Amino acid sequence: MLYLVGLGLADEKDITVRGLEVVKSASRVYLEAYTSILLVDKEKLEAFYGRSVIVADRELVETGSDEILYGATDVDVAFLVVGDPFGATTHTDLVLRARELGIQTKSIPNASIMSGIGCTGLQLYNFGQTVSMVFFTETWKPSSYYDRVKENASLGLHTLVLLDIKVKEQSLENMARGRKIYEPPRYMTVAQCASQMLETEEERKEGVYGPDSLAIGAARVGAPDQELVAGTLKELAEVDMGRPLHSLVLLGKRAHDLEKDYILQFAVNKETFNTAWKQGYGAS
Amino acid sequence: MLYLVGLGLADEKDITVRGLEVVKSASRVYLEAYTSILLVDKEKLEAFYGRSVIVADRELVETGSDEILYGATDVDVAFLVVGDPFGATTHTDLVLRARELGIQTKSIPNASIMSGIGCTGLQLYNFGQTVSMVFFTETWKPSSYYDRVKENASLGLHTLVLLDIKVKEQSLENMARGRKIYEPPRYMTVAQCASQMLETEEERKEGVYGPDSLAIGAARVGAPDQELVAGTLKELAEVDMGRPLHSLVLLGKRAHDLEKDYILQFAVNKETFNTAWKQGYGAS
Repeated sequence: MLYLVGLGLADEKDITVRGLEVVKSASRVYLEAYTSILLVDKEKLEAFYGRSVIVADRELVETGSDEILYGATDVDVAFLVVGDPFGATTHTDLVLRARELGIQTKSIPNASIMSGIGCTGLQLYNFGQTVSMVFFTETWKPSSYYDRVKENASLGLHTLVLLDIKVKEQSLENMARGRKIYEPPRYMTVAQCASQMLETEEERKEGVYGPDSLAIGAARVGAPDQELVAGTLKELAEVDMGRPLHSLVLLGKRAHDLEKDYILQFAVNKETFNTAWKQGYGAS
Repeated sequence: MLYLVGLGLADEKDITVRGLEVVKSASRVYLEAYTSILLVDKEKLEAFYGRSVIVADRELVETGSDEILYGATDVDVAFLVVGDPFGATTHTDLVLRARELGIQTKSIPNASIMSGIGCTGLQLYNFGQTVSMVFFTETWKPSSYYDRVKENASLGLHTLVLLDIKVKEQSLENMARGRKIYEPPRYMTVAQCASQMLETEEERKEGVYGPDSLAIGAARVGAPDQELVAGTLKELAEVDMGRPLHSLVLLGKRAHDLEKDYILQFAVNKETFNTAWKQGYGAS
């Protein structure tokens, strides 16, 4: 059996009781560690589980899935995923491959950022499609996310923006020379995301949002030091929310008063928040 | 401290390790039991927790919140919510009330149906806003959900439909006479939802979907006997998916081939599925 086990969002204790049972009894345990990260390192997980864990990087999952699945018709293999196994990154390809090999699969759900973002007090009902923001470079500033945000905004819906992480990436030079030297991990911050969003609006000029549009920055959702900040994009572009992971929500105009009451308590500046709110939010 | 603890979707073992620690050490433990249910009863939870649990019905939560919060400036009170505390039903009002009383709050996230529905293999990125379907009566067939589905469909997005549950409801007669006699609980099935959707389309005639539109029925997400069925709305209106809880996803036209590969495996009828798919799905 292949078990896909969700680990939740923050640390080793966010696994479910059922998930922990699977981890303790499986023959092999893999940890998917390239699309998201827990806020604790592998050693802490191993100490908590009382067993060793194999880190599965992108290469292993995408090209070595048969190695992960080896023998799983007879023994139990656990594949651990930060968040939910079918959350922001789905592992349907691994499940489909397992089925081809006649291996049964089972999934142990857990909190995902896609629902955990409800901690902002915004109604999950009022979210449109989710988008991803990648690190811009001098020459590559993809703005397809802007079209999705525009669609959501036209309906007055909130947009969850998931922020890029770069783990075990090679520089172009090292890749070209075949050197397996990896860059230090990078995690996008709320401030970077907000300023990239403003950069795209500057370029596209379709008025989907602007410096005075309201958004919420969320850092370390579900962790003891979770932090939420509400403000205009201009304000959020200056905010320091500490260590990763960060996410951002662009507020939809259909936001209602109960949502406002909740988010106002963590506004960077209640005055600018209220001024921005009056520019068209709360219309239902 | 007020702890809002997510219980996850299926049974007593879906609580997280951190959540279980809170439940074991809190002074009082309440179970919110009117917006969703676990698939196990209170006695099983109490046996697993090794302590007693107070069932909080709608009346207690909505009008007796100060009773729940009593003393929580000094002792820990745990408020257990099926799914995630800020998932389909948010408990922001309870948190706001706690803050007014100077009580600190903390939330323990868990799987919610809003992310757990990813088990269908559909990308959570491609979902639009979520809607709710209530039980129609002879005289009351609200169709505001139809407008939301229309908005999602116009963008090619999937729609998650959450199905009504009726727990501890009084009949109009008993209510009028002030008799605290409650009707047996009712849980909407996928078949009922599909046929109500077709009824609305018949009435509204805006062509948002029809008998040949593709949808997925999901029963008992996250449980060992989880069941998924894909088919046309006409097919789903006839399907028997067993005990609650059920949910439904109306497929968006922007669905892509990897999603199709995954859901095809649980099609009621692969032939009608493929025929329906060719009527405009997969356009990106």
